[in-house]
Amino acid sequence: MTAETGSLLQELATGARAAGKILASAETAQKNNFLMALAAALEARSDEIVAANALDTTAAESDGLGDHIIDRLRLDADRIVKIANDVRHVASLDDPVREQIESYTRPNGLEIERVRVPLGVIGVIYESRPNVTVDIAALCLKAGNTVVLRGGRESINSNKMLAGIARDALESSGLPADAIQFIDTPDRAIVDQMLKARGLIDLLIPRGGEALINRVREDARVPAITGGIGVCHTYVDSAADLEKAVAVVVNAKTQRPSVCNALDTLLVHEGVAPTYLPPIAQQLADRGVELRCDGRSLAILEPSIGGSQLRAAGDDDYGQEFLALVASVKVVDSMDDAVEHIDQYGSGHSEAIVTEDKEKSELFLSTVDAAAVFSNASTYFHDGGEFGLGAEVAVSTDRLHARGPLGLREITTYKWVVRGDGQVRI
Amino acid sequence: MTAETGSLLQELATGARAAGKILASAETAQKNNFLMALAAALEARSDEIVAANALDTTAAESDGLGDHIIDRLRLDADRIVKIANDVRHVASLDDPVREQIESYTRPNGLEIERVRVPLGVIGVIYESRPNVTVDIAALCLKAGNTVVLRGGRESINSNKMLAGIARDALESSGLPADAIQFIDTPDRAIVDQMLKARGLIDLLIPRGGEALINRVREDARVPAITGGIGVCHTYVDSAADLEKAVAVVVNAKTQRPSVCNALDTLLVHEGVAPTYLPPIAQQLADRGVELRCDGRSLAILEPSIGGSQLRAAGDDDYGQEFLALVASVKVVDSMDDAVEHIDQYGSGHSEAIVTEDKEKSELFLSTVDAAAVFSNASTYFHDGGEFGLGAEVAVSTDRLHARGPLGLREITTYKWVVRGDGQVRI
Repeated sequence: MTAETGSLLQELATGARAAGKILASAETAQKNNFLMALAAALEARSDEIVAANALDTTAAESDGLGDHIIDRLRLDADRIVKIANDVRHVASLDDPVREQIESYTRPNGLEIERVRVPLGVIGVIYESRPNVTVDIAALCLKAGNTVVLRGGRESINSNKMLAGIARDALESSGLPADAIQFIDTPDRAIVDQMLKARGLIDLLIPRGGEALINRVREDARVPAITGGIGVCHTYVDSAADLEKAVAVVVNAKTQRPSVCNALDTLLVHEGVAPTYLPPIAQQLADRGVELRCDGRSLAILEPSIGGSQLRAAGDDDYGQEFLALVASVKVVDSMDDAVEHIDQYGSGHSEAIVTEDKEKSELFLSTVDAAAVFSNASTYFHDGGEFGLGAEVAVSTDRLHARGPLGLREITTYKWVVRGDGQVRI
Repeated sequence: MTAETGSLLQELATGARAAGKILASAETAQKNNFLMALAAALEARSDEIVAANALDTTAAESDGLGDHIIDRLRLDADRIVKIANDVRHVASLDDPVREQIESYTRPNGLEIERVRVPLGVIGVIYESRPNVTVDIAALCLKAGNTVVLRGGRESINSNKMLAGIARDALESSGLPADAIQFIDTPDRAIVDQMLKARGLIDLLIPRGGEALINRVREDARVPAITGGIGVCHTYVDSAADLEKAVAVVVNAKTQRPSVCNALDTLLVHEGVAPTYLPPIAQQLADRGVELRCDGRSLAILEPSIGGSQLRAAGDDDYGQEFLALVASVKVVDSMDDAVEHIDQYGSGHSEAIVTEDKEKSELFLSTVDAAAVFSNASTYFHDGGEFGLGAEVAVSTDRLHARGPLGLREITTYKWVVRGDGQVRI
């Protein structure tokens, strides 16, 4: 830790805390005005954003970063319109602040109310995608919070531009610009300071890969909600409908392989493996998926699937989040075996069963312990928008506070409000 | 850390985890049978408990522990009946497990449900009062969790006996005894291991003094909910009713001075200080309260209150949790001043205003940021039982997961259950 960054974080977080007093009591309309102003400004200043982003993508190219990183990094006019529309969508969502969670009168006449209030200062550490800067700021501020943002160094020019536009929009809406604080120094020491910033940051949300998540889990002294790592299974039961199984498995694996809710391991009941595995695997192979198979599935698939996409699974292939067009495959003896495999290798993110047997389906859904469990549906649905929360800040695989998608309500807390008339407790 | 205690904690927590699979799916009736069996056994084995407790109180006396510690430690037949009745009360409470928090169908036909499930293995570190062993075990198990308990060394014989009775009651009810694990070694290294037991303990609840809370905040690598430290203010406004002010302040300070929701600092509006402070202070002084006053309140009170109970406040007297018949007193210029004082010195636990002015009351309640805020009522009401939650595991001053009393619902988490018919996400 250097003295400069130490005081920088302190200054930013203290500014966010002070701004938070205004945000916490801001009317919904004022927060929505800010969001609409931000959306308009993003579109109006699209060229500036693209120019700033070009600095990042050019640097990434010359640093030899992979194509998928550069793709995540890139902003163009279309993507900017999409980001702006996402912000407008946040404006359309219900404001969770001051929502009455419950309210009742006790026998002694005390009126007790549990009411939603903002969490406070939310620190976010995130990696390449610059849209996160806007998404997170919009959601956190709608819920009355303020943010201290630390983006990846590879998108620093884009992030700086986007955060600046958001701060301008706050000011133009009569809200304090310091509600959005962007850390624009590449000094890595500041991440460590964020992890230790008790009293400065009320909640830390890391959005990134396994290394970041593990570092937060290991070192954070501030409350954190972590997630993102999804080792996701889909179990095709002996009572599965083949057509549904193909559709669900192919969607979960190939629709967007780089996300945390994508399928990693396909488990197939031995009773249907000889007939179901070949067509499922063929569809996957046709879409470029490499299949890493246990002995039984390999024996079934070898006659039909081409060699380059088929290989024997190693020990590491179960319990791994591939984030790519790769899946491990295993034949299981029973649903119990599938559940046991998931128990051992799953990360508690998204787990699915395909079956027409209601009883087995309900048993799977109640027994498997994960943030979201699915029956006859793709794990790719595990998302705040798809679940109807409007949007999400992150997907939590923690058990405390919020599990699964963090929508607006999930980034608030509550307080107890007790109204009396002079009551005392004996 | 010694190898023995390391493996002891691992063994106990692993046992609790395995038992948790059964507890999580146990029917409400079976859990209630356990609770009723436990209550009956506590009464039936009252003599054994008293005898075990005598070992602890005798040791505490010869160790020269203070009277209030020995009082907290002591169990007699009456207190045991009370503990048993508290357990019966837990049996009467609604089971939060499998409660449907929400349920809806998305436009694509996906049926989405958010359902309450147990948190898992709850580690509890607590100090002298042996009733905590039974209270916590009863509440945690009713919510489908299992527990690893670490009590204070001064109550080890009582705790061991109570935990043993609870384990017997589990077995007699057909539930696994390992759902309640009691750490019976005095080895202090095990506390440190509990703090670091990621993957073994899902939630850590420390119940104790400031040193324990701070240690958990500083060193815990497992999710923890901390609380218990209450620096509580009551602000008597210029529009307060005197009778209510006297009743509320005296109750908050003197009904049970040793608890976290007791009044620590009395703030009085300057407009009413000359007339209100003397009668309030007199009632406090009559009950043995020492008053540590700022200059203005000292000047008002010196003529009427006896010297031994009145003294000038030092810097440390604001922001201190006294847990005794001591209160600091301060005259403030306005409600804003009171709110600012609370903002600076409060611990976010319990804060109260006494006023007949509805507008000021509502402003105070919405502005002051604490787990519970009160208008015209004693802060001593801040309690799960008094709030109608039935009981509480602890009172949280954290912002995440649960704030204020932790009742049964607050020691659960939830999962998303999604039922489809082959849907895929585009």
